Amino acid sequence: MTIAYDGSAFHGWQKQKATCGEPDVIPVRTVASVVEHALVQVLKQPVEVVGASRTDAGVHAQGQVAHFDAASRVPEDRLAAAINSRLPDDVEVLNVEPAQPDFNAIRSAVCKQYRYRIFNSANRPLGLRHFVWHCWRTLEPERMQEAATRLVGRHDYRGFSAADQKRATTVRTIFSCEVACDDPELQIIVQGDGFLYHMVRVIAGTLVEVGRGRFAPEVINRILASQDRTLAGPT
Amino acid sequence: MTIAYDGSAFHGWQKQKATCGEPDVIPVRTVASVVEHALVQVLKQPVEVVGASRTDAGVHAQGQVAHFDAASRVPEDRLAAAINSRLPDDVEVLNVEPAQPDFNAIRSAVCKQYRYRIFNSANRPLGLRHFVWHCWRTLEPERMQEAATRLVGRHDYRGFSAADQKRATTVRTIFSCEVACDDPELQIIVQGDGFLYHMVRVIAGTLVEVGRGRFAPEVINRILASQDRTLAGPT
Repeated sequence: MTIAYDGSAFHGWQKQKATCGEPDVIPVRTVASVVEHALVQVLKQPVEVVGASRTDAGVHAQGQVAHFDAASRVPEDRLAAAINSRLPDDVEVLNVEPAQPDFNAIRSAVCKQYRYRIFNSANRPLGLRHFVWHCWRTLEPERMQEAATRLVGRHDYRGFSAADQKRATTVRTIFSCEVACDDPELQIIVQGDGFLYHMVRVIAGTLVEVGRGRFAPEVINRILASQDRTLAGPT
Repeated sequence: MTIAYDGSAFHGWQKQKATCGEPDVIPVRTVASVVEHALVQVLKQPVEVVGASRTDAGVHAQGQVAHFDAASRVPEDRLAAAINSRLPDDVEVLNVEPAQPDFNAIRSAVCKQYRYRIFNSANRPLGLRHFVWHCWRTLEPERMQEAATRLVGRHDYRGFSAADQKRATTVRTIFSCEVACDDPELQIIVQGDGFLYHMVRVIAGTLVEVGRGRFAPEVINRILASQDRTLAGPT
């Protein structure tokens, strides 16, 4: 499945690791639980939806990929419409297609793209306020791009991750990191094979410090070399 | 004052005609009441804010003009910032400037522009859902433009107004009416010297019926000639 959502009214993709059959301890509204609920109604069987990225609260998706295992009597080309008819208006299944039996939305991911939107203006974002970070200080996108390019490659990104993160390895590959201008909006678009907890937010916070002139673009190399989270910008 | 707002969480500009000094009977959150509240804090005196257009619930503004009469000890160039510091994040004062004593936001208006946004796609508008009308049927913008052009001029628009509207005259001038495409969005942009109650919505509903092929563009001339609301599209 490819899923899009406005994350404003969701407590993220998945509040906690759901074990199949075991109800969530805290009954909060998450994207995975809402999609699963619709899918169970359509397929009339227990289904677990596994998403490629466990996005946090306030994160939106244009193409979250998820998988589920089920025997369906609903034709594949009608599944998306059947699920959507049971979904609220802030989430949408864009596509459902059969996958190889060994496909896993998390393990089979080869590239993920995150887009961090910054509203760089003295004016308020108003209707965009749930979709952008408002930064009224003038940012220099050229400086930010110079720093962003230094993130690309295969590196240990521990210095850009939450201090308490417990992944087995903190080595990842960033394929590209672009700073795009669409006045008054500025976007940080990063692609990689995977991201550590809070990694995109720390990258965004660090690039903004560079854009404001408080950090030099070379800070990126120092953080990568030292793996020191305290050298990076705010989450 | 020029004011912008995201109308999603407001019960319109003004729920009912507020008499100066008399509190609203129903204490609902309206743009005028929120702006007045901030203004009273800044100017430390009773103030009544009069807006050029009493927009309905769900209507947003990029440049609503309003006036108020007050003696201010706050310099004019600092008034907007002072008011904004006391406003919630879904409304913003863009500008405050002195006006001639006889300026009145309602009576002095020479042109108003309304923009009706239609999301013309089989997909859901998701994050745009509070800002667009979702129409999944295919619309033909050329047909709509042909109809829109027929609205331009000085006419009695009673046929495009709410049946129970009680204005002294229903004659208005529409300066322009454009159908703009920004795939998958389609916008109806109408400018005139004033609009009757529900007039923009009935125009939008009628142009959509033309775009769907249910009405011919000539329907506009028939409605203008007959002043028959039942010939027009839905509100």
